[in-house]
Amino acid sequence: MDVIGELYRTADWKSEKHVPVIDCPDRVAADEIFEVTVSIGKEVAHPNTTEHHIRWIQLFFLPEEEKSAYQVGNFEFCAHGESINGAANGPVYTHHVATAQLRLKKSGTLYATALCNIHGLWESSKFITSFTWTQIDG
Amino acid sequence: MDVIGELYRTADWKSEKHVPVIDCPDRVAADEIFEVTVSIGKEVAHPNTTEHHIRWIQLFFLPEEEKSAYQVGNFEFCAHGESINGAANGPVYTHHVATAQLRLKKSGTLYATALCNIHGLWESSKFITSFTWTQIDG
Amino acid sequence: MDVIGELYRTADWKSEKHVPVIDCPDRVAADEIFEVTVSIGKEVAHPNTTEHHIRWIQLFFLPEEEKSAYQVGNFEFCAHGESINGAANGPVYTHHVATAQLRLKKSGTLYATALCNIHGLWESSKFITSFTWTQIDG
Amino acid sequence: MDVIGELYRTADWKSEKHVPVIDCPDRVAADEIFEVTVSIGKEVAHPNTTEHHIRWIQLFFLPEEEKSAYQVGNFEFCAHGESINGAANGPVYTHHVATAQLRLKKSGTLYATALCNIHGLWESSKFITSFTWTQIDG
Repeated sequence: MDVIGELYRTADWKSEKHVPVIDCPDRVAADEIFEVTVSIGKEVAHPNTTEHHIRWIQLFFLPEEEKSAYQVGNFEFCAHGESINGAANGPVYTHHVATAQLRLKKSGTLYATALCNIHGLWESSKFITSFTWTQIDG
Repeated sequence: MDVIGELYRTADWKSEKHVPVIDCPDRVAADEIFEVTVSIGKEVAHPNTTEHHIRWIQLFFLPEEEKSAYQVGNFEFCAHGESINGAANGPVYTHHVATAQLRLKKSGTLYATALCNIHGLWESSKFITSFTWTQIDG
Repeated sequence: MDVIGELYRTADWKSEKHVPVIDCPDRVAADEIFEVTVSIGKEVAHPNTTEHHIRWIQLFFLPEEEKSAYQVGNFEFCAHGESINGAANGPVYTHHVATAQLRLKKSGTLYATALCNIHGLWESSKFITSFTWTQIDG
Repeated sequence: MDVIGELYRTADWKSEKHVPVIDCPDRVAADEIFEVTVSIGKEVAHPNTTEHHIRWIQLFFLPEEEKSAYQVGNFEFCAHGESINGAANGPVYTHHVATAQLRLKKSGTLYATALCNIHGLWESSKFITSFTWTQIDG
């Protein structure tokens, strides 16, 4: 059977403009909100026109030693210059960057996926360690 | 690197209730609209409660001999009995089945992906042949 | 303040191609699954090109005598002929029609909203009566 | 006819936790990217549990003196503690805040809409002036 995993490509985001970049701490305190910024074209700019643009970035989380992933976010970039005066002639553009806020109770891997409307599906991932503060009395 | 493909599971939909089933013709006329029904639990019913339900089914298409996939549809099932009177006590439920209409200009593979809110990502695929009518004069 | 309601337009779908049409029974048995087909351009065809297309149809339900609506479905039509060979030159198109399956426990109003990428937001609604079978012994 | 606008409620976000807050500059340079943060519960916290949470915040833009709105963003908060060990017992939560990046070529009104899974649809709006730099020689 053909599997969806074969459709996702990855590469070094410093040279390939389609790869989603996950910016967040490597270690976060359990149960405390932290920010995650996901972006396309962090080093090499990606076009944003009616004909060629990034549709969305999605986030998934796989807790360590578990086998079912959770969807965390779906960030759709909807405006790309479309207009009644023709393509790429409109008044508003949504840039392909989003910042979300998450809270974890366990360590695990965060996966970012992205869709370019003509170059398909891309992915990257990052392991995040969730730690618990321990009080040490003097 | 961890890859998103590893998070998608598949199985025989006749015994595993999470696997999306793609119902459509094996062969379709090029550039003519046809129906595709995607469903979860065709043989083995899946729950539909606030605590446990199918969130969405998505469709992607990879044209034969190409390497970038297109997203075709995203069908979100949003109502699962949530209510101010408590979980699974509400007035409306969206069942995890959707029928879409597509038009192809080439043969290729259709991929269905699905998300269960607690059992993660599932997938299946089906090859569709796109043919062109040829007129034969007598 | 400006309100979102002012951005939604409606009209007679027999003459205005953007208006979503809701096709389903007027009366449904409580707690039994029934089909709802939502479509754009049922009488007057709407374009489906990279530059001009229907993005989605969403469904909401307001139970009778309640004040909070539930989102029922979000059906995104994602493929509109975009391709690396230029706009409206691609291999796959998603038509702006979807069939969902719902289950109600109360009567109420179903709202369909739709987005045209250059002509904005459109809406329509339909009241559905939910009835309960009563057994009458002879 | 019943209209979707009647389903959206608004209020002062300093006292009503469901109202989306739009944080961005009042004036932005035309064609330059700026940040918009949309959030729920900026002053009064909103729950984030499997049974009661914010599903999404969406952004729309109506250019001044135009009549068709554009969808700008759809930010779905997908994880709310669901798990195989029961509701509100899971390892990941998506907080109901998102930061997007936009670029405008005209002034207009930005609309934020939000969905609480049990308290329905909420809205707010903000006018943004787009200005152009003029060089003044000495």
